[in-house]
Amino acid sequence: MAQQERAVRTRHAVIQAAAAVFAERGYAAATIAEILGRAGVTKGALYFHFESKESLARGVLESQITNDHWVPREMKLQEWVDLSMTLAARIPHEVVLLAGIRLSADGQGRAMFGSAWPAWMEVVRERVAAAKEQGEVLAHIDPQQTAELFVGSWIGMQALSEAHSNWADLTERISTLFNYILPAIATPATLIKLDIAPDRGERVLQEVSRVPALAVGA
Amino acid sequence: MAQQERAVRTRHAVIQAAAAVFAERGYAAATIAEILGRAGVTKGALYFHFESKESLARGVLESQITNDHWVPREMKLQEWVDLSMTLAARIPHEVVLLAGIRLSADGQGRAMFGSAWPAWMEVVRERVAAAKEQGEVLAHIDPQQTAELFVGSWIGMQALSEAHSNWADLTERISTLFNYILPAIATPATLIKLDIAPDRGERVLQEVSRVPALAVGA
Repeated sequence: MAQQERAVRTRHAVIQAAAAVFAERGYAAATIAEILGRAGVTKGALYFHFESKESLARGVLESQITNDHWVPREMKLQEWVDLSMTLAARIPHEVVLLAGIRLSADGQGRAMFGSAWPAWMEVVRERVAAAKEQGEVLAHIDPQQTAELFVGSWIGMQALSEAHSNWADLTERISTLFNYILPAIATPATLIKLDIAPDRGERVLQEVSRVPALAVGA
Repeated sequence: MAQQERAVRTRHAVIQAAAAVFAERGYAAATIAEILGRAGVTKGALYFHFESKESLARGVLESQITNDHWVPREMKLQEWVDLSMTLAARIPHEVVLLAGIRLSADGQGRAMFGSAWPAWMEVVRERVAAAKEQGEVLAHIDPQQTAELFVGSWIGMQALSEAHSNWADLTERISTLFNYILPAIATPATLIKLDIAPDRGERVLQEVSRVPALAVGA
């Protein structure tokens, strides 16, 4: 195995292990010792990639943002829905996403290592701004405000879904969220064409796995 | 001072002190010793009212639900808006409410002492159900779903507001939330009559303080 490939694998193992520990225990209670044990790497290997627990948290948050599941769509509001619904479908199964939610919700930690929120807002803002340029969106809509409203509501729907069903109803709740906010955002002609069914995310993920070249990051 | 009056005052002092400590440190890091110190009461007096830290948390959560600021309105959707906007206006200044937010957001604690969420959902559900009976609401709306959507979004907007502005923009964000969801809920004839301006809560609070008899709990 080439040295570079080994480094990539080690980094990946450390991120997965750190994510598992952060997701289970939260940032404050997580220890480097437990992350080392789960990753099955040496202390030296871990510190080669991450100098501190704080930089591990940052690494986990950064590794969330990938283009792997992003399929460009003609209707930019559908692209926003698809990005959101695929994320909702992935959250219960991906420890890096679960860790990101817990780290982002940690008020004290956030001051040190940031959160997933600004990047998520920017993803939404870009889609709504592009949709506005294409005439899909009502004239008075401010994309930045829409992005903050959506990400804010999303954070709370996540919290409810975790508390009520351990994430099982997340896609249902995010579909409901779109149902309630899109009439205030989309033009009627766009609204009627949007697919926001709870299983939308699952269908897009299947589409990407069948034709990986569809996705931008492929 | 009559014995009963003294007991009420002690209980109030303990709840305020516990709320301050829970709001600042969270449930896990809070200690009975610190709560005692802030309340200025004896250990015996505290344990007369609350047998454990857990029952203190429950006491704080229960003491949030009062009718002091509830003004009945002919339009039940306006009543819902008013209840929400007065709550948003009070949160930055009332330690019992701040403690309730932090306790409710504590996933581990929630299993022990519950959260403010179910009571808050029920307040919303009742108003939307009454509004539906009066024809203020679109026919397909399910009041329980609307209540869960609103409380879920509310929780996240609170989190964003705390992170971005230490609560200063909360009334603005809740006003925005109503702006985005009410078109999917209210009939057009009701929608046009609703007052959801960011300063609505402050104005209702002034109305209640001028004419306390207006409020149901007075």
